[in-house]
Amino acid sequence: MNIVQSAAPPLSPEWIAAFRDIVGDKYAVTDAADIAPYLTEERGLFHGRSQLVLRPGSTAEVAAICKLATAHKIALVPQGGNTGLVGGQTAHNGEVVISLRRLDKIREIDAASNTMTCEAGVVLQIAQQKAAEADRLFPLSLGAEGSCTIGGNLSTNAGGTGALAYGVAREMALGLEVVLADGRVLNLLSKLKKDNTGYDLRNLFIGAEGTLGIITAATLKLFPKPRAIETAYVGLKSPADALKLLSISQSMVAGSLTSFELLADIAVDFSIRHGIDIRDPLTSKHLWYVLMELSSSRDDARDALEAILAKGMEDGIVDDAVIAANLSQRAAFWKLRDEMSAAQKPEGGSIKHDISVPVAAVPAFIAEADAAVVKLIPGSRPVPFGHLGDGNIHYNVSQPIGANTADFLARWHEVNAVVFAIVMRMGGSISAEHGIGVLKRDELPDVKDKVAIELMRGIKALLDPLGIMNPGKVLWS
Amino acid sequence: MNIVQSAAPPLSPEWIAAFRDIVGDKYAVTDAADIAPYLTEERGLFHGRSQLVLRPGSTAEVAAICKLATAHKIALVPQGGNTGLVGGQTAHNGEVVISLRRLDKIREIDAASNTMTCEAGVVLQIAQQKAAEADRLFPLSLGAEGSCTIGGNLSTNAGGTGALAYGVAREMALGLEVVLADGRVLNLLSKLKKDNTGYDLRNLFIGAEGTLGIITAATLKLFPKPRAIETAYVGLKSPADALKLLSISQSMVAGSLTSFELLADIAVDFSIRHGIDIRDPLTSKHLWYVLMELSSSRDDARDALEAILAKGMEDGIVDDAVIAANLSQRAAFWKLRDEMSAAQKPEGGSIKHDISVPVAAVPAFIAEADAAVVKLIPGSRPVPFGHLGDGNIHYNVSQPIGANTADFLARWHEVNAVVFAIVMRMGGSISAEHGIGVLKRDELPDVKDKVAIELMRGIKALLDPLGIMNPGKVLWS
Repeated sequence: MNIVQSAAPPLSPEWIAAFRDIVGDKYAVTDAADIAPYLTEERGLFHGRSQLVLRPGSTAEVAAICKLATAHKIALVPQGGNTGLVGGQTAHNGEVVISLRRLDKIREIDAASNTMTCEAGVVLQIAQQKAAEADRLFPLSLGAEGSCTIGGNLSTNAGGTGALAYGVAREMALGLEVVLADGRVLNLLSKLKKDNTGYDLRNLFIGAEGTLGIITAATLKLFPKPRAIETAYVGLKSPADALKLLSISQSMVAGSLTSFELLADIAVDFSIRHGIDIRDPLTSKHLWYVLMELSSSRDDARDALEAILAKGMEDGIVDDAVIAANLSQRAAFWKLRDEMSAAQKPEGGSIKHDISVPVAAVPAFIAEADAAVVKLIPGSRPVPFGHLGDGNIHYNVSQPIGANTADFLARWHEVNAVVFAIVMRMGGSISAEHGIGVLKRDELPDVKDKVAIELMRGIKALLDPLGIMNPGKVLWS
Repeated sequence: MNIVQSAAPPLSPEWIAAFRDIVGDKYAVTDAADIAPYLTEERGLFHGRSQLVLRPGSTAEVAAICKLATAHKIALVPQGGNTGLVGGQTAHNGEVVISLRRLDKIREIDAASNTMTCEAGVVLQIAQQKAAEADRLFPLSLGAEGSCTIGGNLSTNAGGTGALAYGVAREMALGLEVVLADGRVLNLLSKLKKDNTGYDLRNLFIGAEGTLGIITAATLKLFPKPRAIETAYVGLKSPADALKLLSISQSMVAGSLTSFELLADIAVDFSIRHGIDIRDPLTSKHLWYVLMELSSSRDDARDALEAILAKGMEDGIVDDAVIAANLSQRAAFWKLRDEMSAAQKPEGGSIKHDISVPVAAVPAFIAEADAAVVKLIPGSRPVPFGHLGDGNIHYNVSQPIGANTADFLARWHEVNAVVFAIVMRMGGSISAEHGIGVLKRDELPDVKDKVAIELMRGIKALLDPLGIMNPGKVLWS
């Protein structure tokens, strides 16, 4: 992949000094060793380069940085927890990195209005904890929650395992504070559920991956904290049966169904084989599994879950099932699921997809993609798993046993093309929840409505006329 | 209010002929008597003028109309069910009206994916009915549902009584089809809950009141149809107690609480006095009332509602309450609520507000607004009612008994100013669910973030460079 946009010119000592004046000596990082952690990411897929990492401590400092960057046409890469999966947070071409992690204040929790106003650098898990302390739920939840930040979650419109009932990150933001490329501060902070005063600007910045402005704070929705959560691990024969179980569940408990994850047997096998302390929750093997969860404010979740599973067995859909007897068993079920990505590594090269299709099309998608991928690379091993309730499958493909990993990974785009063709035919998305970044930027024009791309370019030019905001991400500038 | 932007020049016969060629003779309305219904609205507040109403039958025809309008710089006003409350759908200055009502096909219902794809002219009630026939719920619900259309609902981001649990119109649209000013068709139709491929363009058009493009179709979310709905009518002492009851309800049943309406005694009195066949559900009088509703997929709603009311009584919040014994009693409760706007008419002039504040601020807002309004116009009668669960109050003010109606209504903007000042101090919105149109356009710059207004103007110029799309609405062009 060609990720070089245009190499940024070296920063002059004067400019570095001017930036340092804004954030203070301590928070202008210029030492290569100190910069290094901001330039690599966990999987080692992307490596950036930069002379300067700025760690502003306030919205005003972010605004001053952007104003200066505009004056000298200096490119900026905003960064939260550095956990993104598409290279969006990496300075590929010598840009100045703005780490938002010091903007870590929770400005207000208004439990009676069910809102929480957080700065961009608040770690997701902290936001969850603070909401819980106020007897509320902040339902965004994903693997990286211990280090990803609210600003990054919103900039990438994160999904995760709670989206089925509570929506994606976009749906959790009532208000935003955004610093624009030229340093103007757009104040859309609001606790209002209903506000029809003019165009919706908030959603332009959510999911824009920092290419239109820098989110510095957000007012988030809180929800009543569930009193009871019940979790089941179910063995079944096919994605079609899992879809039927989803339908039964939704008709029986509607919004109380808060997670519904589909897991292929191979994905479960990898987790059990390579994860630490992971055991099979069921005594016999099945071709497919579902990890499902009900949340309720009352003490009825257990009965409801048992009724769903009983109906599933009666209909011949559910072959076996176990309900978590306690919190540690629940945690064990989720660990099996959460380790699924990591557990693919010991199996060699893995070509990843984060796709979505209409929920009803998931079984057909998996069948067609499996056939197409195995035809393209005989012996390759599809490892599909993910959020069936959202039509979002992490359709990963592990290399054939004993194959050369580099040779297999060299076919990344070939495999993508085969999978994406099926996705597009079904009205799906090539990036359900991870975004575009640089990883999928070159595919975007092929899969997106032409007029939509034209409008995106127009909006980019309007908000970032100099092309200094996270250049080369999402769109070629 | 000055609603004249710049009078459109008369249409030449050639242009009229060219538009007629697009939609066909039958659907190019030029007779003044036939045009009249498109130029007036129910309350008689706005009267437009136009030489030509076009009734296209397809997206392609809408696109051809826009292309021609761009070529000759002819202004267009899109219109759905003509039920808007802020003059947004009215051709104030001789624009060509495009009525979308013939775009009335439901293109697809995909019950397994929980989606429905409707054209813009589908009447809301028809959409509700078709969803119900597929054993699903389309939860958008408002007074005008018998005549308003999906396109208008989305263009104004309608709210209504179901927003508490299901969200406003914006949150129900997964995908959109939009015709741009120059006739390009933007295809964002999608059944996907998760799609992070580029900027969110959909939300730009939702709530833009037809000023950025014309919504021609949408893919809407469907929900499981509730099996049980239980409705209570509650008498209590104050908005503060109503807020406590809301909090108790949400902690006990979370998302199962699907409506929570606060009604002042005077609003109830007006309904009973002036409505037809409306009776007081309770035997004694109270200062405030709550109309609340629980929906459930199971048979537990009745028990849950009783538990909430019992807790409310125990805490001294609920003074009296009655649960609807059957569907006709439920309908009677809602009729009392639904007649509330109409029932203000026989009481003389009424100065209307559709405001929202953070939910927790509603009691303080009502107290402060009451005091300020009565101080400004002694004897004036505030009639607050609305969606407490959303912080959205229809804060209407009836004239003093025996006062001159015209003199009272002449003070509309003075009263607005007093109320809006309190709203803004509390971080609220001057238009929670009705939009801006022309009615609140001149107030918008005073209440909206300056940078937001600048961005709105930039986006308007990008998408409608000639200023032909519903000119003079939302923004002065």
